[in-house]
Amino acid sequence: MNNFNFYSPTEFVFGKGRENDCGEYVKKYGGSKVLIVYGGQSAVKSGLLDRVKASLEKNGIEYYAIGGVKPNPRDTLVYQGIDIARKEGLDFILAVGGGSVIDTSKAIAIGVRYEGDFWDFYSGKHATKALPVGTVLTIAAAGSEGSGDSVITKEDGMLKRGTGSDALRPKFSVMNPELTQTLPAYQTACGATDIMAHVFERYFTNTKEVEITDRLCEAVLMTMVKETPRVIADPDNYEARANIMWAGTVAHTNLVGVGREQDWNSHGIEHELSALYDCAHGAGLAVIMPAWMDFVYKHNVMRFAQMATRVFGCAMDFENPENTAVAGIKAFRMFLHGIGMPINFEELGAKEEDIPALVDKFGLGDGRTGGFVKLSSEDIAEIYKIAAHATL
Amino acid sequence: MNNFNFYSPTEFVFGKGRENDCGEYVKKYGGSKVLIVYGGQSAVKSGLLDRVKASLEKNGIEYYAIGGVKPNPRDTLVYQGIDIARKEGLDFILAVGGGSVIDTSKAIAIGVRYEGDFWDFYSGKHATKALPVGTVLTIAAAGSEGSGDSVITKEDGMLKRGTGSDALRPKFSVMNPELTQTLPAYQTACGATDIMAHVFERYFTNTKEVEITDRLCEAVLMTMVKETPRVIADPDNYEARANIMWAGTVAHTNLVGVGREQDWNSHGIEHELSALYDCAHGAGLAVIMPAWMDFVYKHNVMRFAQMATRVFGCAMDFENPENTAVAGIKAFRMFLHGIGMPINFEELGAKEEDIPALVDKFGLGDGRTGGFVKLSSEDIAEIYKIAAHATL
Repeated sequence: MNNFNFYSPTEFVFGKGRENDCGEYVKKYGGSKVLIVYGGQSAVKSGLLDRVKASLEKNGIEYYAIGGVKPNPRDTLVYQGIDIARKEGLDFILAVGGGSVIDTSKAIAIGVRYEGDFWDFYSGKHATKALPVGTVLTIAAAGSEGSGDSVITKEDGMLKRGTGSDALRPKFSVMNPELTQTLPAYQTACGATDIMAHVFERYFTNTKEVEITDRLCEAVLMTMVKETPRVIADPDNYEARANIMWAGTVAHTNLVGVGREQDWNSHGIEHELSALYDCAHGAGLAVIMPAWMDFVYKHNVMRFAQMATRVFGCAMDFENPENTAVAGIKAFRMFLHGIGMPINFEELGAKEEDIPALVDKFGLGDGRTGGFVKLSSEDIAEIYKIAAHATL
Repeated sequence: MNNFNFYSPTEFVFGKGRENDCGEYVKKYGGSKVLIVYGGQSAVKSGLLDRVKASLEKNGIEYYAIGGVKPNPRDTLVYQGIDIARKEGLDFILAVGGGSVIDTSKAIAIGVRYEGDFWDFYSGKHATKALPVGTVLTIAAAGSEGSGDSVITKEDGMLKRGTGSDALRPKFSVMNPELTQTLPAYQTACGATDIMAHVFERYFTNTKEVEITDRLCEAVLMTMVKETPRVIADPDNYEARANIMWAGTVAHTNLVGVGREQDWNSHGIEHELSALYDCAHGAGLAVIMPAWMDFVYKHNVMRFAQMATRVFGCAMDFENPENTAVAGIKAFRMFLHGIGMPINFEELGAKEEDIPALVDKFGLGDGRTGGFVKLSSEDIAEIYKIAAHATL
């Protein structure tokens, strides 16, 4: 196990009706003039935004609201948010939505406290201060409600880039699984795929002797394997929604990844897909993650066999563990297909002829990535090719 | 799943040599005049205390030190600590030791900020403020480094009582597994038993549909089942020590217990044993916890069968699940015996004739406890009796 720091100070406020308490928590964490950030009309139509506003009013908190955050959230809205927050002297950002809304809110929060262009932080600069952020989560997926991460797309050139800092960890996150019940099956499955990918990016490691984090990773993955099909079959299943929602947070506070080298190449490779095609991040991961597994599993067959047996219940082939490793990847693809996810370029709406452009955008040049297996540009092209043609 | 809040703001600073950074973290969390609290001579002889002091000096932090905390820590030392902290105007408590030292430090921290008797908080009052506490952990066991809990024994009458509050959660906890390598096998095994008990107290629940927390509980338990015998056989095994140490923290931040009714009767029943005989808490739990399981398993045979198959790898008897439930409890007792723990009164040094006094001290009268199975005084007497005569 490697040395590590683990710090997850967010207060999670979980369960039915908890959005009605959000004003109390804004107050507890020092907010008095709030910028509410939200996405499309669903937060308005469902009455959620009204309930949030009522809770703020009840606690004597002033607010401004900015809507229109889109999936793969853009820098343009971040600049608007920064302007409003500065002009009105706001002291707290309240995200009401999913990962895109939360990531936008975090970007606004660092931007307000920085004299230069907020994009500097998405180009390598480390943030040390930000306005406090709270969240009311409506999609179980990105884990942004418990992480210090944010991913934003720059419209000029459609560059999708991320930043991370403890200063961006939300003060509190309200998590009511009921709010996810209206989510269409496709988006629910995208979220579940993202959650599983957050674990796999940490699970495949070269660090030895990390039994506790291995087991915690597997705990989240087994939960997703059990609960996701239930929720696809029965969208109103509160209990399955609740298990998925909490699993999504546990998957990404980094509790399951401390003390070990991590990978994150699948996320990087996927980001180019969702930047180019504006597809859902989770759908892109469903295509890329198993293709990455096909490409790298020989690097450590026993680790893939462990995943196959412990997570997907595959029988261990002690004479030929590679059979088990391959069976595990197949089981993952079948699971993804079963919950309605694409597993190849055609199903995703991507084009094989774009692969050179995707690799070029990844920007690796003659270098190599880090992680479980260090990849070259040629390796990445090969992973896109496997993804293009994958079948069950 | 029940509604819940989860809040674990402690910064965990984990790995080799990290005690040399503790001054930095005291400073980060606002300490300038520190009370160091420690236990016996091992912290002095090993040079740990000197390293801690050097790190404080390097960061320009003044300190006073108070030693002599014993297992089952007493109120008398708490009063001394409060006096010193007040007299010298100290603003931070740094615990260097295991659960007893940390619990004493927490008690001092609330006492300093309270005009009345600190024991009020161990008699039902809820603490809302305390001096900041940091820890340098030397024993993987109590989980106090990541919890808001503290247990103290009042010498007058040997009353062992606990308190809990978010105000008592440490600001930071330095966790260097190397520091646990000098611990005798018996104490190491006591710590491991305590860690497993913290999970079992949460695992046996009447709340339905808590897959994610079930799986997280099992992750910690499986880790302990794998790593504890390794460390008993090879005390210098850093990797096994590291896995146990982090498992011990995860077991008790309440991450594995949120959203579900919990039990805690075994802890209550054990506290009377360690208060009366001054035995190690973990050793008492090794005797009580399986006896409690024997007494309650019929309340939910399938939950015990789940534990047996998932944690101890018992074969599921689908024709008669009770066989599997019983096999799981037997496997737990054999595990405890295998790591050198007592499993009955004789091995612990307790006496059957004291059972009426133990039950009386528990103080239930005609009432019943809460938890998985609500217990009467007669039930508790019966559990002590099972514990008295248990065999493999």
